[in-house]
Amino acid sequence: MNEKNWITEYVDKNLGFTLKIKEMLLDEQTPYQHIQVAETERYGRILILDGVFQTSVKEEWTYHEMITNIPMMAHPNPERILIIGGGDGGAAREILRHETVKQLDICEIDKRVVEVSQKYFPTISKEINEKNGKLKMHIGDGIAFVKEIENFYDLIIIDCSDPIGPGEGLFTRNFYKDAKKALRKNGIIVQQTESPIVQQKTVHEVYKAMTDVFTNVNVFLAYVPIYPECLHSFMAASDDIDIRNAKITRKHPIPMKYYNEEIQKSAFVLPEFIKEAIYKGKYTF
Amino acid sequence: MNEKNWITEYVDKNLGFTLKIKEMLLDEQTPYQHIQVAETERYGRILILDGVFQTSVKEEWTYHEMITNIPMMAHPNPERILIIGGGDGGAAREILRHETVKQLDICEIDKRVVEVSQKYFPTISKEINEKNGKLKMHIGDGIAFVKEIENFYDLIIIDCSDPIGPGEGLFTRNFYKDAKKALRKNGIIVQQTESPIVQQKTVHEVYKAMTDVFTNVNVFLAYVPIYPECLHSFMAASDDIDIRNAKITRKHPIPMKYYNEEIQKSAFVLPEFIKEAIYKGKYTF
Repeated sequence: MNEKNWITEYVDKNLGFTLKIKEMLLDEQTPYQHIQVAETERYGRILILDGVFQTSVKEEWTYHEMITNIPMMAHPNPERILIIGGGDGGAAREILRHETVKQLDICEIDKRVVEVSQKYFPTISKEINEKNGKLKMHIGDGIAFVKEIENFYDLIIIDCSDPIGPGEGLFTRNFYKDAKKALRKNGIIVQQTESPIVQQKTVHEVYKAMTDVFTNVNVFLAYVPIYPECLHSFMAASDDIDIRNAKITRKHPIPMKYYNEEIQKSAFVLPEFIKEAIYKGKYTF
Repeated sequence: MNEKNWITEYVDKNLGFTLKIKEMLLDEQTPYQHIQVAETERYGRILILDGVFQTSVKEEWTYHEMITNIPMMAHPNPERILIIGGGDGGAAREILRHETVKQLDICEIDKRVVEVSQKYFPTISKEINEKNGKLKMHIGDGIAFVKEIENFYDLIIIDCSDPIGPGEGLFTRNFYKDAKKALRKNGIIVQQTESPIVQQKTVHEVYKAMTDVFTNVNVFLAYVPIYPECLHSFMAASDDIDIRNAKITRKHPIPMKYYNEEIQKSAFVLPEFIKEAIYKGKYTF
């Protein structure tokens, strides 16, 4: 926070995104990361991990709707879901809107993320607070958790922070191989994969790693106001389902704030420079 | 510019976007506006008008390709084009790639924008510098220019700055009525219409004004890295052409960095919260 009550995320060494804040509510170091909670003027209460804006009350649904609904709707009958990371509960809330779901496991490494979300972000952690019977919270390492599972989940969502810090091992070929083994027939894995404008090299490397492990890897985009340059990429991979062209057989259960049927298709359309960066490693910036 | 060589655009009173700069190359007041040119680390040389980031060498094609190619490809045979504003020459460069074009008029109010672009942004002002025979530059007020024209242009592009300052009158019903009169059969008008995330009220008001004057008004989006929250809206309007669903009858003449055939359609797909804001005036932020 600088002297005039602005908090700035330096997205790279030459670019920053700055929000005016009313009050810093929490500032602590956990065994895994630096957690801050601030009240901002524009986007309401915001969660910051290791200096990176993670989610805020006023726009969290952009990210949470998109990381969940695109793969959920592409799958014919998603019953068993695993979220790795996602201790804030936002992705869980979106998953539990779907009636097909029978079991939802969350594996979050840092129990303080869960506790902080329960205290400061009750609209995000709603289903955790209300102890939804389908939801089970596991505090531990997602990499180790996935290693023990075989042929079980329909969807694994990797809702992690950046590939620096506790999230690092979740962006590797070895982890994707273990995740693939944990999926059953028609299984899908989806991951947040950083900004295709600011972190082009990371996005390309994740794409290469995922395509080494899965037959179909599709990149989709969403606008997330508090993320670098607002534009965020996700990758959805499967050996059995062509996620981009999947026939959608159900109606989404409730009207959404971001997601709609047209977006299920258009989110996969990429500008040429983003294709060049992700598929070929030819970086624009 | 603050003490550590960062330049910040305060996008609204609670949100800023900040770029590290190497050098300020120009800083002057014209009769119309405050012009600055800076060399930034991330996006190269940047043009700033009245404190608002306008265009930069490394990402200018995102905006210029999208404001031109979407309406150009939707029109069956665009021969006569008018650009209001656009004194930097970027939109002109894109228009002149199309072989259908016989006449391109630019009406820019501030001759210093043209001169500054010619001196500092030669890749953007290329067609002005090379005196392309189809291009005619008019220095003057676009509102007055359009009033004198009847049944003439196939496409009018309003490539203006924000609706505060010299661009203000270009966002009004009266101007749209005059522009409509200046179009011939199948004519299209397209305008940059601010950020659908940061300037939701403006976008809604422009939409209302345009729909009062034109039968078909379609909103499309593009990612422009130096604009507020990266996401920018444009409106394309016509009495004769349904721009969003227009059958595309030509191939684009050259490979683009942003635009492609899929984007011609997907750019018109809007998240629900953006539809609510633009169509209904229900603002999210």
